[in-house]
Amino acid sequence: MSEAWEKLLPHLREMVDLAGAVKLMSWDQATLMPPNASPARARGMATVESIAHQHLINPEVGDLLQELALDDSLDQDQAASVRILKRDYDRATKVPPELVHELAELSGTAYQAWTEARPQSDFSLLQPHLEKMIRLKKEEADAIGWETERYDALLDEFEPEMTTRDVEAMFTELTEGLRPLLEKIVGVSSPRAEFLSKGYDPASQEAFSHWLVDVLNFDSDSGRLDTSPHPFTITIGAGDVRQTTRSEEKDLMMSIYATIHETGHALYEQGLPTELLDLPVGRAPSLGMHESQSRLWENLVGRSRPFTEFMLPHLKERFSAQLGMVNPDEFYRAANHVEPTLIRVTADEVTYNLHLMLRFELELAMFREELDVADLPNAWDAAMEKHLGIRPDSDANGVLQDMHWSNGIQGYFPTYTLGTIYSAAFFAKAQEQLGNLDDELRDGNTARLLGWLRENIHSKAYRYSAKDLAEQVLGAPVSAKPLLEYLRTKYSQLYDISA
Amino acid sequence: MSEAWEKLLPHLREMVDLAGAVKLMSWDQATLMPPNASPARARGMATVESIAHQHLINPEVGDLLQELALDDSLDQDQAASVRILKRDYDRATKVPPELVHELAELSGTAYQAWTEARPQSDFSLLQPHLEKMIRLKKEEADAIGWETERYDALLDEFEPEMTTRDVEAMFTELTEGLRPLLEKIVGVSSPRAEFLSKGYDPASQEAFSHWLVDVLNFDSDSGRLDTSPHPFTITIGAGDVRQTTRSEEKDLMMSIYATIHETGHALYEQGLPTELLDLPVGRAPSLGMHESQSRLWENLVGRSRPFTEFMLPHLKERFSAQLGMVNPDEFYRAANHVEPTLIRVTADEVTYNLHLMLRFELELAMFREELDVADLPNAWDAAMEKHLGIRPDSDANGVLQDMHWSNGIQGYFPTYTLGTIYSAAFFAKAQEQLGNLDDELRDGNTARLLGWLRENIHSKAYRYSAKDLAEQVLGAPVSAKPLLEYLRTKYSQLYDISA
Repeated sequence: MSEAWEKLLPHLREMVDLAGAVKLMSWDQATLMPPNASPARARGMATVESIAHQHLINPEVGDLLQELALDDSLDQDQAASVRILKRDYDRATKVPPELVHELAELSGTAYQAWTEARPQSDFSLLQPHLEKMIRLKKEEADAIGWETERYDALLDEFEPEMTTRDVEAMFTELTEGLRPLLEKIVGVSSPRAEFLSKGYDPASQEAFSHWLVDVLNFDSDSGRLDTSPHPFTITIGAGDVRQTTRSEEKDLMMSIYATIHETGHALYEQGLPTELLDLPVGRAPSLGMHESQSRLWENLVGRSRPFTEFMLPHLKERFSAQLGMVNPDEFYRAANHVEPTLIRVTADEVTYNLHLMLRFELELAMFREELDVADLPNAWDAAMEKHLGIRPDSDANGVLQDMHWSNGIQGYFPTYTLGTIYSAAFFAKAQEQLGNLDDELRDGNTARLLGWLRENIHSKAYRYSAKDLAEQVLGAPVSAKPLLEYLRTKYSQLYDISA
Repeated sequence: MSEAWEKLLPHLREMVDLAGAVKLMSWDQATLMPPNASPARARGMATVESIAHQHLINPEVGDLLQELALDDSLDQDQAASVRILKRDYDRATKVPPELVHELAELSGTAYQAWTEARPQSDFSLLQPHLEKMIRLKKEEADAIGWETERYDALLDEFEPEMTTRDVEAMFTELTEGLRPLLEKIVGVSSPRAEFLSKGYDPASQEAFSHWLVDVLNFDSDSGRLDTSPHPFTITIGAGDVRQTTRSEEKDLMMSIYATIHETGHALYEQGLPTELLDLPVGRAPSLGMHESQSRLWENLVGRSRPFTEFMLPHLKERFSAQLGMVNPDEFYRAANHVEPTLIRVTADEVTYNLHLMLRFELELAMFREELDVADLPNAWDAAMEKHLGIRPDSDANGVLQDMHWSNGIQGYFPTYTLGTIYSAAFFAKAQEQLGNLDDELRDGNTARLLGWLRENIHSKAYRYSAKDLAEQVLGAPVSAKPLLEYLRTKYSQLYDISA
């Protein structure tokens, strides 16, 4: 075996272990840490993160990566790991330490300003911080380097090898298809089903979620399900994939779909090859690819006619008073109610990607220097009108609703939509290869589908970029067509319209 | 402010943060980690511990400590911190790295051998590992250095500045007082109350424990109570003191007294001065001092006539079927049932310290080279006969019952008894200064007692050694007399004997 690789391995393991420590601290912080522990935890996480960062930018690691880039004795997984780590190393070392520090500090203060600006619906409290953020993120993009345009460098952090131009083309096609569909739905839509907001005991909802993750083959000996205000999935280490859900008494669907969504992420993590877990090649290739799994389970499976039919009697066992009279059709409709609303995180399948399109457009305009931060609130409202046909009643429910921009997370929003695009394409391909899955889903049997995802996606880890992996699976470059096709078919039937 | 101190501070904070990360990993491992995460967690903890160790033995830290030892611009807390860290640094650097490594490895294999030897009750499986352990621990003691005898160097790790000679004198006095008391009790004792082993729903026992820690002023905004097979208390960081308890369906007292015991540790941790938490002076001065708090709450408070009377009606609310007919006298007796048994961890107040005495004697004999490991089982059984008047039915219930020796923890056992000795002395002093506390305890009101402990012990942190702190609080060197006096008075009344 290569001597340089032998020297790199302990570094890789140490990075995995340090990252695992930080992830445990972060999971604990979000789930069950006592409130007064906050300041100490914030400092503790920063300390361990900084030690981990020092490890990554260790010149010894840089030298080994140089050497290994030319080492043709490496096997495929080792070579891929060297490429991936080199990318991380370059991104980490190209940005001057002062800028890294300034950005970390600004993320804290701007996020703090956002937590004050949002409840007061006062964008001016955030504006100066966001102006500085956009300026520093431009500097960061320039330090990292880009070919066609700046935004590429930001997008590349979350969706390696995807370009702004690719995203723009797919998103435009999608949006142009979605808007007419939405208009037709709005023309015939009825109000949200009343039974959804009857009282549902949170503890019983959580018990249902525990049952549900078992049904979906989440391995609870190698993970946990807990609750947190914002559901998430995090892998602490091998054999330790933790997901969370949340429940609201007046919203039955919230916990069900949060759970299925996170289970999609968790099944992906549990399906990554065990023997690669210490290597950079052992992870998912991009956030979009990760989101493809959560969206596939949440929407293509979880909101399907057969799977909603499967869930209903099990829900009735726990909530007979609220759901006793609800039939499978009504339940299916309620799980797929479409209505333009102001808030992204609770948006339905049809409007969700329009929310993302709007954010992507505005982000891009700022980085292309076609939009000033000062004009952002007006631009937001105009874009809401254009894409969703409604205007925010306040900045709190408009431009101030997400924490991403204040937190220095630019280039991230498109990965949500990319994931949704991938999810529909993968599900169509799975049904093409496995045959129609309706009967299995009606029995709550998702084993064959999971097997297909394991074989075609999970087991590949980061051996290919998301784009290349998708092309391999699909036999052609990914496009928005399968998603559009899926939404048109499903919702024209559901709302009895021509699509 | 001293320049060297300014340079030392970031090291201190980093050590605290790394230790906090390890402690969180360890807490999680013991409470709720999924089973398949074990190997990755073990490696992760070893990695972070090793980084923390590298920090401690960093020559830069050594140089700063040298310089600061002569720096008279330091305030008291800084000077004490330098002394304490210098001690840690010396202990860590005096032992050759190869020996550290060998001991770490042996702890793993010997512990593993113990987990196999105990269920089979086969000492021969452990013997060669324990022989090596004693040999290496002797080398370790010699590397650290000692004046009077080797065992001092081991004891000093857990009970700084306490000598074997001091411990021996106190323990001998205690044992000589306890044995006649125990003989008299055994002469008149009746069987354990039947109601103790009626079925008690573990979830209800845990709910009672949550109620109990509140009553005892544990601050749940700055800590948690969970369950684990072996109860423990651990401080993850500022504002984050976590304790655990355990419950057994057939043993009502187990969870009650595990909870009160751990709450004693937890209240101490929550009472350490916040402003010192990053400094070596900010912790408890010794394990014995820590145990003084757990024992004081568990025994002097928790098993007292007034506090058992306070708890009973609250227990009856949850367990009316099992406890409805039990009166306060019966409950008090049941909580203080004395009976020589083979197992230390479930021993009563009177026999507990005899179990420890036996361990201390045998440990000491091995380090004084008066006892070979091969003869340990026989020596154990003989000592049980001598101290407790009973003989083990097997090595599993004899010499193999504790994991300490196999795990490389030598010199630790005496701290349990030292803690008990301190606890009785402190409680007597508290009542001398505060007046009789019975009426308050009968109301479940422990605020004045806690205030006294906060003022006299918790707030002092490690500003003095345990020995010196005890002398300050008591106005005289600590001795076993108050403990003997307390046990004689309490149990002669309880068993209606002359003590």
